[in-house]
Amino acid sequence: MRAPAVVALGGGHGLHATLSALRRVTGPEHGGELTAVVTVADNGGSSGRLRGEFGVLPPGDLRMALAALCGDDEWGRTWADVLQHRFAGAGEMNGHVVGNLLIVSLWERLGDHVEALEWVARLLGAQGRVLPMATVPLDIAADVRGLDALDPAGTSTVRGQVEVARTTGEIAAVRLDPPDAAACPQAVAAVREADFVVLGPGSWFTSVIPHVLVPELRAALCETSAEVVVVLNLEQQLGETTGYSPEDHLEVLLEHVPDLPVHAVVADRRSIADADALGLAVASYGARLVLADVGLDGEEARHDPARLAVVLAELFDR
Amino acid sequence: MRAPAVVALGGGHGLHATLSALRRVTGPEHGGELTAVVTVADNGGSSGRLRGEFGVLPPGDLRMALAALCGDDEWGRTWADVLQHRFAGAGEMNGHVVGNLLIVSLWERLGDHVEALEWVARLLGAQGRVLPMATVPLDIAADVRGLDALDPAGTSTVRGQVEVARTTGEIAAVRLDPPDAAACPQAVAAVREADFVVLGPGSWFTSVIPHVLVPELRAALCETSAEVVVVLNLEQQLGETTGYSPEDHLEVLLEHVPDLPVHAVVADRRSIADADALGLAVASYGARLVLADVGLDGEEARHDPARLAVVLAELFDR
Repeated sequence: MRAPAVVALGGGHGLHATLSALRRVTGPEHGGELTAVVTVADNGGSSGRLRGEFGVLPPGDLRMALAALCGDDEWGRTWADVLQHRFAGAGEMNGHVVGNLLIVSLWERLGDHVEALEWVARLLGAQGRVLPMATVPLDIAADVRGLDALDPAGTSTVRGQVEVARTTGEIAAVRLDPPDAAACPQAVAAVREADFVVLGPGSWFTSVIPHVLVPELRAALCETSAEVVVVLNLEQQLGETTGYSPEDHLEVLLEHVPDLPVHAVVADRRSIADADALGLAVASYGARLVLADVGLDGEEARHDPARLAVVLAELFDR
Repeated sequence: MRAPAVVALGGGHGLHATLSALRRVTGPEHGGELTAVVTVADNGGSSGRLRGEFGVLPPGDLRMALAALCGDDEWGRTWADVLQHRFAGAGEMNGHVVGNLLIVSLWERLGDHVEALEWVARLLGAQGRVLPMATVPLDIAADVRGLDALDPAGTSTVRGQVEVARTTGEIAAVRLDPPDAAACPQAVAAVREADFVVLGPGSWFTSVIPHVLVPELRAALCETSAEVVVVLNLEQQLGETTGYSPEDHLEVLLEHVPDLPVHAVVADRRSIADADALGLAVASYGARLVLADVGLDGEEARHDPARLAVVLAELFDR
């Protein structure tokens, strides 16, 4: 059986974990296809500085996806480490990340985001493609409740990915600015032609939901014949999803895209307090719940790529 | 016949040309060894900024040598272009060069200049080794005549590679600060074990002569059983060697290192006004003059790597 064509959508550490898992299951080395579609709304840190200085897409989430796709030999692992290296130093380079600068340099040279990312992937021997969700930098804005002490039920608007991720209020909804940005055509095509689409884990409002807010990408996700797999986070994320249960995560995603067909929901057995409640919610969306040990052992709430790979491989094999 | 072990010493564009030529003749792909030994006294531009911010060796000349050693397929040529890419932009990144940042990142990660350069070479698939002449940053100082209008015969001291390269006076001699810096041990060993050592072309006082001023490297150059080949510049360099004839270049080099055994001197036939004078000078040092067309066609006074490769291959084959 050929390895499947899989598209993983997300950003940051969550997408890094998914890609680290998927790389073990599919991608060119396995005779399959692996495509990462990455959020481009970051406005903080090295990415924010480069976005400001060069007017380019914020490269940080793209770089992290590329690092996840580097090969698993010593050469590939070293490249991954170098890509992720953040300069210490005492001056203007402090906080910049090597891979971000590499990506920006190819953008400067080639003038085309997608072509440049293909070249970066080739230069690094990456085991898959990395595409931006849109080819212009975007901003995230959120309706947030509880920020105004005089009107606790009212909503305020918070702008910027960093600001939304750090809000102390309760996020009711997010949107993109501009709201009608063109999707990256190659990302849309990849979703439409995929066998499987994997959404999450990751910062729910700033890395996962943004994908369904780009109109053409949203349409592709709702219309694709691919099976859609949602991988839930291991815990609530302070700020973004304080107080959110696993089923709340699903619900708020589907509030943003009611037509999304969800075929399977992967959740970590050890992180789920009330499996029945989650099972009911998942069933109500017509999806199947896959409960498995997919978290790392230890205190850190992160997915274990090896365990997640086993679960995803079983899903793909059915 | 096995391909020879060759060490090329220099910096900047001159060393880039030599290495681009030598890569066609020897190095690991040919069953030989190719080692670049590179000056580390630059204090200008991106290198100067990084040296100041991180307290590391100035990476620019090392990066240029690595770019010259990148493979000659599309992947290698693209890596070479990316390494040499200088950011335009409008802010803090302006003027920085990708390869310099890559080198510094590995220095930060590994804490050892030589080990880090070996890794950079591996990551880029470089066709040889790149070593610094010393493992601490150095400075160049020069005795310069003609800077004091009241005392035109007197000499002044000019400090800094950039300042020396741009002086409007006549450079009488250069020295390193500190004068007794330890050489890179791997560079010393490579010179001692080489079949051929190639010195020049390049900025004569700031890229070529500094190598003979590092005590251990100077001793290795004088004592090695390798044949020493000096490749002369195509023309005088405004500032550094204004008014210098080809034989003046040789003479001033040997004033700085009278014991250097020179076996062959390569000069560009079309650049030599008085071949007899040069022939006499070369013979007086016991060396053989190789006159050949080694310049690029056109106005730019640069060596043609393909032509220089043919000449060096013939020298190595004798």
